[in-house]
Amino acid sequence: MQEYGSFSAQERAALLEQLREEYAVFQGLGLKLDMSRGKPGADQLDLSAALLDAALLDPPKTETGFDCRNYGLLDGIPEAKRLFAALLDLPAEQILVCGNSSLNLMYDYLAQCMLFGADGEPWAAQKKIKFLCPTPGYDRHFSILEHLGIEMIAVPMRENGPDMAFVEQLVRDESVKGLICVPKYSNPEGKTYSDETVCRLAALHPAAKDFRVIWDNAYLVHDLYDATDPLLNIFTAARDCGTEDHFIEVTSFSKISFPSAGISAIAASPANLAAIQARMAIQTIGHDKLNQLRHFRFFRDARGIYDHMQKHAAILRPKFETVLAALEQDLGGAGIASWTNPRGGYFISLDILGGCAKRTGQLCKEAGVVLTPPGATYPYGRDPEDKNLRIAPTFPPVAELEQACALLTLCVRIAALEKLGEQESPAGKREQR
Amino acid sequence: MQEYGSFSAQERAALLEQLREEYAVFQGLGLKLDMSRGKPGADQLDLSAALLDAALLDPPKTETGFDCRNYGLLDGIPEAKRLFAALLDLPAEQILVCGNSSLNLMYDYLAQCMLFGADGEPWAAQKKIKFLCPTPGYDRHFSILEHLGIEMIAVPMRENGPDMAFVEQLVRDESVKGLICVPKYSNPEGKTYSDETVCRLAALHPAAKDFRVIWDNAYLVHDLYDATDPLLNIFTAARDCGTEDHFIEVTSFSKISFPSAGISAIAASPANLAAIQARMAIQTIGHDKLNQLRHFRFFRDARGIYDHMQKHAAILRPKFETVLAALEQDLGGAGIASWTNPRGGYFISLDILGGCAKRTGQLCKEAGVVLTPPGATYPYGRDPEDKNLRIAPTFPPVAELEQACALLTLCVRIAALEKLGEQESPAGKREQR
Repeated sequence: MQEYGSFSAQERAALLEQLREEYAVFQGLGLKLDMSRGKPGADQLDLSAALLDAALLDPPKTETGFDCRNYGLLDGIPEAKRLFAALLDLPAEQILVCGNSSLNLMYDYLAQCMLFGADGEPWAAQKKIKFLCPTPGYDRHFSILEHLGIEMIAVPMRENGPDMAFVEQLVRDESVKGLICVPKYSNPEGKTYSDETVCRLAALHPAAKDFRVIWDNAYLVHDLYDATDPLLNIFTAARDCGTEDHFIEVTSFSKISFPSAGISAIAASPANLAAIQARMAIQTIGHDKLNQLRHFRFFRDARGIYDHMQKHAAILRPKFETVLAALEQDLGGAGIASWTNPRGGYFISLDILGGCAKRTGQLCKEAGVVLTPPGATYPYGRDPEDKNLRIAPTFPPVAELEQACALLTLCVRIAALEKLGEQESPAGKREQR
Repeated sequence: MQEYGSFSAQERAALLEQLREEYAVFQGLGLKLDMSRGKPGADQLDLSAALLDAALLDPPKTETGFDCRNYGLLDGIPEAKRLFAALLDLPAEQILVCGNSSLNLMYDYLAQCMLFGADGEPWAAQKKIKFLCPTPGYDRHFSILEHLGIEMIAVPMRENGPDMAFVEQLVRDESVKGLICVPKYSNPEGKTYSDETVCRLAALHPAAKDFRVIWDNAYLVHDLYDATDPLLNIFTAARDCGTEDHFIEVTSFSKISFPSAGISAIAASPANLAAIQARMAIQTIGHDKLNQLRHFRFFRDARGIYDHMQKHAAILRPKFETVLAALEQDLGGAGIASWTNPRGGYFISLDILGGCAKRTGQLCKEAGVVLTPPGATYPYGRDPEDKNLRIAPTFPPVAELEQACALLTLCVRIAALEKLGEQESPAGKREQR
């Protein structure tokens, strides 16, 4: 494809006219497609249908004889703790198994740090506090921090994780209390932190004594291909540095079994876990242990989970490849877009010409395709260059995805041509739009 | 039975010696019984066995076609909202259906008031704030308030609810931000607030503009007999007074289906509910909707719940009556104890001779019967008269309950005789014990 930057004004105008005709055809189709959220498709959910068999709960007791229907076992049933221990490569004693949402665990942990502190003065009682946010990142992380009044500092993502030199400089500021991230198959880029990144995070010696990294290991077994992106165990790395207390890890089965009815876990150093459990004991008598038992008996062990995840991968691979093929075919070589090529996770990150993301989102929406709102991948919803789009290819069937991608790449090209026209002739801005 | 107060010192000593011999026999039995918590028995849990049938989730979609396995529907599925609406006699729009724990909903609401306020300045940012606690009351309520640093003011319970004249006086203090209570079959007394009490609570015009009553309607359908104790709808009463914003109601299925795997709900005025939902949207993407669907399809409507609760009552009635019969037989007329005779709920409240509750708890424990820790029914675990014991008769089978009650009443008598001896002859204190 010809580089868009090399077009003459005339060529650009002609191409724009042609693309707008194509766009008008799309508008006539009455599409109603959604690529906005990382939702599994119905066929993925069907993979766990047998998780709902009543036979899995007969008898409804743990291996230690505890009746899972009744109150108690705040820390989770032993079987489920073992299952997470295998997944996270941690001792079961460092894990609490909880309800359906790891987001809720992160919110609760951070909100409780605001009220009661993280081994220190309550964060809410301290002057302005800050968190580091590798960007682009997960919008719901940013929403929690913004809601709690924690100032967010964007840290650019590099190939191997956040810009660690920048992180190391920022943590000299005592008001920087932590960092929140998805270290494997990051949201939205699908990048996995390298061993060096993990070790440098473990080796941080921040000015703040109550520094906490929220290690949201949401996609730990969510590979698209046989080979996984290896991620170093953060607690192993931290133990070597004496910084285990800096890390709070969460994960869940939301994208292993059911988003609405999975189980979640929080893992931490013995000292942190004791504090978390003491706070949780005030909050609830216990989580849904029947669902924990169901999950254990359905998956049994890490092997059972890996096998199950291969079935997810078989469904998801063609969807990711559909998007990537469309991007390559429609945008490759045009010099107006670059994108990630993740080997796992739930998203593809698409960077387009600066100043074009919002316009592209609007064009897509007006033709019936909903993207994650442009800007959402940045703190406060503000993408400083207005260039990043998160593509969530998992929910629509492949046929719909093809349509949605055709429209998306069309809108990217239209927005780019409009922008290039503006840049060349500012006066032409009004006409172009 | 002869009044204990009328004994001569000699008679008392003789009786005490006899009772201590009986106690020694109990100690030899090696009992291990638990009357400490309001846990349903296994036979009660069996009543909901069919709730776990996979067929109930086929198809796993709401009546509006929403896939309950996937993300979304933060406010709960429409069917479950309707079910709670019927139970609470409120519009479904005023209800959010949530996870397994109404305790968690109360904690979250209060913690969020600390951080963000209840329609005003964050409570944590205000000077010392206070809550009114009808006592005896529910220990887990008190734990939440204590944990959040909210000062608790005990308000004595009368026959028809808290001492309202005292409440009306206390709310003139601007630092009094609310009240927390179980208005029906109260924990531990099993009392239900009269219409007058409900109307006076609704009519409160507190000095605090951000005053909130946590209306923990935990036992709303938990009758032991055919006739229920009627409880006025707090929101109806409040509407007449223009005080709907003062009330936050919660309830759950913990003692209808399964303590560990029920569903819960929070109900509030439209303004409060919007604020609660906006905060919850930061905290989680949604609760377990499969469990909501399961519950709806098993119970269908209020009638289905009432019928189910009659089966619980058939199991619980003999247990309550066993305890009451033992109290009457062993303590009636002795002038050293009085107790409530609840028509629903999960507890019986036993008041014994002042200064004897801790000693009785200790004697019971040393012979293998665990009671709720004496004091737990009061803020900060401090029963000023050391006289209240909470009896939870639901978990042990009747035969065990008979044993436990025989021991309990024996310990009450021993503690009373010891105390009476001390009072008459302070010097004899050491000998008596």
